[in-house]
Amino acid sequence: MKLIRFRENGKEKPGVIIDERYYDASVFGEDYNEVFFETNGLERLKNFIENDSAQLKELSNDITLAAPFQRPSKIVCIGLNYADHARETGAALPPEPVIFLKSTTALTGPNDQIIIPMYSQKTDWEVELAVVIGKKASYVEEANAMEYVAGYCLHNDVSEREFQLERNGTWDKGKGCDTFAPIGPVLATKDEIADVDNLRLWLSVNGQLMQDGNTANFIFKIPFIVSYVSRFMTLLPGDVISTGTPAGVGLGMNPQVYLKEGDVVELGIDGLGTSKQKVVAYAN
Amino acid sequence: MKLIRFRENGKEKPGVIIDERYYDASVFGEDYNEVFFETNGLERLKNFIENDSAQLKELSNDITLAAPFQRPSKIVCIGLNYADHARETGAALPPEPVIFLKSTTALTGPNDQIIIPMYSQKTDWEVELAVVIGKKASYVEEANAMEYVAGYCLHNDVSEREFQLERNGTWDKGKGCDTFAPIGPVLATKDEIADVDNLRLWLSVNGQLMQDGNTANFIFKIPFIVSYVSRFMTLLPGDVISTGTPAGVGLGMNPQVYLKEGDVVELGIDGLGTSKQKVVAYAN
Repeated sequence: MKLIRFRENGKEKPGVIIDERYYDASVFGEDYNEVFFETNGLERLKNFIENDSAQLKELSNDITLAAPFQRPSKIVCIGLNYADHARETGAALPPEPVIFLKSTTALTGPNDQIIIPMYSQKTDWEVELAVVIGKKASYVEEANAMEYVAGYCLHNDVSEREFQLERNGTWDKGKGCDTFAPIGPVLATKDEIADVDNLRLWLSVNGQLMQDGNTANFIFKIPFIVSYVSRFMTLLPGDVISTGTPAGVGLGMNPQVYLKEGDVVELGIDGLGTSKQKVVAYAN
Repeated sequence: MKLIRFRENGKEKPGVIIDERYYDASVFGEDYNEVFFETNGLERLKNFIENDSAQLKELSNDITLAAPFQRPSKIVCIGLNYADHARETGAALPPEPVIFLKSTTALTGPNDQIIIPMYSQKTDWEVELAVVIGKKASYVEEANAMEYVAGYCLHNDVSEREFQLERNGTWDKGKGCDTFAPIGPVLATKDEIADVDNLRLWLSVNGQLMQDGNTANFIFKIPFIVSYVSRFMTLLPGDVISTGTPAGVGLGMNPQVYLKEGDVVELGIDGLGTSKQKVVAYAN
């Protein structure tokens, strides 16, 4: 399945894509959140679609998409998970995964604006594959870890490099600003992706290709990451783990290049769709 | 007001303390969460108590307390906010606040067990004053910041030092394990605390006093901290900012001392009560 959420009359509503067409899934009666995933919602939604799809109202193609799930309890991110990106940032290859947390208030729709924060000089982009957790995970074995994965999303892990690296704190300071987590267009369930370790992911700024990687170059693969993170914190249904970005971020260029008002960022991952964000400056 | 929450029949319920007595506030019909704080719940609860206190059922003193609010969107922590603690950890005095995030799955009741994680050698304690946010805060001015504060709690910012400092990542790795955020007994509203910049805070292990500080020694005071954090991420009603710990943690001792199974940790802050956690080892 491919789950979406969209905005209508100031509210966010659940939907699904069936045969390239968008449908309102409000009649199913649940939104995509912790309770939904915890109570086997994906299986129930699948049954609903198979048996009652006539109840689903088709949507026009010009709907405004929201993130494909409600605000989760946490967005965990893996830093430096592609060797080429570690090199470009001047960081050593990590002996084990770097973990940081992104404030969930950063979550936004896939095609919403990216707001450059006040006082920011170094707002940067990072195309990433995000994993959505399907059930509570604590001390999960790598061999069983995929049972805890509900699906995958496209994520732009927007990052303010000065806040992240030069402002006396952990990376969290530069990762959680409002609009710094455009996610979507879809949450694709696991079965939609034949080989998650061989997906092209790319990002362009104003039409110029900046990142062009492949998940084949993960340093740490998804089952290991899920298992690893679950040793340090319990993952709840609906939680997100973003798996790191390949080379080609603004920080890694010489001279460095950062986002400015009016820029347009487009990104995509095979099978997970594309998203597009216009960059604006913060205004009171 | 002093808000509590307690466990009954496997559920967590809201309560209040009036004249040292504990009352079930379930009849008020709301739990203490984002919606409660966002919709002026503290004011409404106050009115309810003034007009309808006869409806409140008194509780016995041997109730089991939960954290005094529901799981927030985030727990932001300030590192190294007391000069004596910065010295003992060997860290330089911070030119601006260190920010990190604690996974909200770490939240637990004030007198619950602390579980030493699997593979942990260095589980440590940190008595802290935690601020609870009362309304949405983004780019708040220091002069107005106290308007965004709902109240205060006692917090043990339990920390695994190897995970935090030696495992190749940000501090988040050692801060968010399950049971690493015992909070309570109470959420004391702002008006209950005459001078938040002059509160003794202490912590003992097995009866031996390890930390004995005073919020008079904050490097960064609460209005500045709220304003500062709100530049990097939007704070939602019910969110928590923990303001750092004074000297006397296990990491700062020579030789270092860490928690082991059977230890009993007790802590307190003037006006915010005391809490007590028994330490156990993780068991499957």
